[in-house]
Amino acid sequence: MIRHLDQHNQTLSLNSPANLVSTPPVDSRHRVKQFMQNLQDEICSALERLDGKARFREDQWERPEGGEGRTRVIREGRIFEQGGVNFSEVWGDTLPPSILTQRPEAVGHEFFVTGTSMVLHPRNPYVPTVHLNYRYFEAGPVWWFGGGADLTPYYPFAEDAIQFHALLKSACDVCYPEYYPVFKRWCDEYFYLKHRQEQRGIGGIFFDYQDADGVLYVGPDTDGPAALYSQQVGKVPRNWEDLFGLVQHCGGAFLPAYLPIAQRRQKMEYGDRERNFQLYRRGRYVEFNLVYDRGTIFGLQTNGRAESILMSLPPLTRWEYGYQPEPGTPEAQLTEIFLKPHDWADGHFQGT
Amino acid sequence: MIRHLDQHNQTLSLNSPANLVSTPPVDSRHRVKQFMQNLQDEICSALERLDGKARFREDQWERPEGGEGRTRVIREGRIFEQGGVNFSEVWGDTLPPSILTQRPEAVGHEFFVTGTSMVLHPRNPYVPTVHLNYRYFEAGPVWWFGGGADLTPYYPFAEDAIQFHALLKSACDVCYPEYYPVFKRWCDEYFYLKHRQEQRGIGGIFFDYQDADGVLYVGPDTDGPAALYSQQVGKVPRNWEDLFGLVQHCGGAFLPAYLPIAQRRQKMEYGDRERNFQLYRRGRYVEFNLVYDRGTIFGLQTNGRAESILMSLPPLTRWEYGYQPEPGTPEAQLTEIFLKPHDWADGHFQGT
Repeated sequence: MIRHLDQHNQTLSLNSPANLVSTPPVDSRHRVKQFMQNLQDEICSALERLDGKARFREDQWERPEGGEGRTRVIREGRIFEQGGVNFSEVWGDTLPPSILTQRPEAVGHEFFVTGTSMVLHPRNPYVPTVHLNYRYFEAGPVWWFGGGADLTPYYPFAEDAIQFHALLKSACDVCYPEYYPVFKRWCDEYFYLKHRQEQRGIGGIFFDYQDADGVLYVGPDTDGPAALYSQQVGKVPRNWEDLFGLVQHCGGAFLPAYLPIAQRRQKMEYGDRERNFQLYRRGRYVEFNLVYDRGTIFGLQTNGRAESILMSLPPLTRWEYGYQPEPGTPEAQLTEIFLKPHDWADGHFQGT
Repeated sequence: MIRHLDQHNQTLSLNSPANLVSTPPVDSRHRVKQFMQNLQDEICSALERLDGKARFREDQWERPEGGEGRTRVIREGRIFEQGGVNFSEVWGDTLPPSILTQRPEAVGHEFFVTGTSMVLHPRNPYVPTVHLNYRYFEAGPVWWFGGGADLTPYYPFAEDAIQFHALLKSACDVCYPEYYPVFKRWCDEYFYLKHRQEQRGIGGIFFDYQDADGVLYVGPDTDGPAALYSQQVGKVPRNWEDLFGLVQHCGGAFLPAYLPIAQRRQKMEYGDRERNFQLYRRGRYVEFNLVYDRGTIFGLQTNGRAESILMSLPPLTRWEYGYQPEPGTPEAQLTEIFLKPHDWADGHFQGT
């Protein structure tokens, strides 16, 4: 929407050709919020149909400093031992230091953020845990989109990893062909447990600080594969609508990417061995979320609702000092081969 | 030990009267290391006798960047579902930023640290989890002692809290009467889960950055009860030997403080209700250790041995979204009344 301009109008600079693309529409917050709520609704409905037994319980909450949310949790289902799908919109006087370091233009400005986040912990160890989060920030002169989705299997099935990545790649490719190669590498970089020297899972896509500036990778590892690939790509011409479109496509790709995997794996029989391994590996999920995850840290730093932030933690977890799987078993192959970064979207896996 | 001095000797300033008290003895590292290893040995022997079934398994390890340790873990015992007692000595080029902020004099200097840390996770929910950690740092011109011990019950027994605090108070009082009142308040401040607005347990003592400067409280909350009490006390005249004595007394108080509690509580019968509550509360222990604990964060930041650092995590843990105990039950009283800071060492508890 282009307003009539006066050469002396203060809003001129916002509407000059160079900046036109970088300004959100006047109803940006409403539109993104609507999308995030719809995404939550669609995912919850589909998961309830898949589970066939448990239903989501909803808690609506308000944040005293500004904001509200709908936390939905499914428990003790046929497929889902526990799962949470959270929508929130939050505003306040100032972003936390961890974000202001990345976006100094936001210093001294109020912020607005809305997003949907989800973590599913299936009971059957052959069904992967999965995570999704899309979010949108505005703070004074700056705005950006972030998010992604990633899969954390307990047992290695190349078919699942290939399918999950292929669907996310398609969603990205509709928008811009270089999105997926950067965001896939960024996901591998982000979901990494440094103290274990392990990937959290087989990845997916991850991006943050996406705005009209057009730089794809805006992460800390300036020598990493995502940064190097992004430098080759250079700046991408895009505006607010393009990026909102990206988030809509990626959000929409989640159900077709995950549901078939859950459907076929939940039929597989398992015993104590697989269950014990799943509980052990869930410990890594806890370690990642509490030590590294910026969504969790942001939530705790901004005095968010602890129960909603920590709904990502698994229902039952175990730690075992010095555990090592038997060589040659699927449990050993998981971390030794399968959880290394692979080009899953190519459709072939040379690991096992 | 006073060396012969020459007025032009470079070591003069170290031996002038004002600084004599603030300089560690030449064999400081060796003596503290010896004490830390003996403390580990004594605790492990006593715990094995108490357990009567399981034995500690020891892993000796070396840190590539400098240092070594002995990690000892007991598992599936009669009393201890899992427990770890760790000794380590570590050195390196530079302390991590989180410590250099507190001790800028250490910037540009190599560091040395030795310590013993312990966490015990009993199986019976009536036996409290307990933690101990004592440590000693040297880095260029600065050195300091830190540590403490604290108790995390799952069910409220005032008798246990009183006994635990009384023993620690006695150990502190032998050294200086104002140590316990400051370190007890500091412990309540430190073992606090801000995002839950909950104490981790019933506390004990905690101190850090204790050196010849004589300021008792050196923590972040300059308006808190520990800081205010410490200001009233003023500076305490003491030297390296005095502080090593404090750590020796406190370390020695652990077994008499904890063993009687474990002995009487392990006889109590329990069922699924108590076990489920224990597993749920263990989640708070995980949250504290991964989000707040500076020992854990220091270890992960200095590329420490992850298995040894994370041996503090419980063997089995559960999270449950939105859990609320029934009003009036012991489970509700635990957080509502018992885990608030109380003056346990006074010997009376007005809570229940």
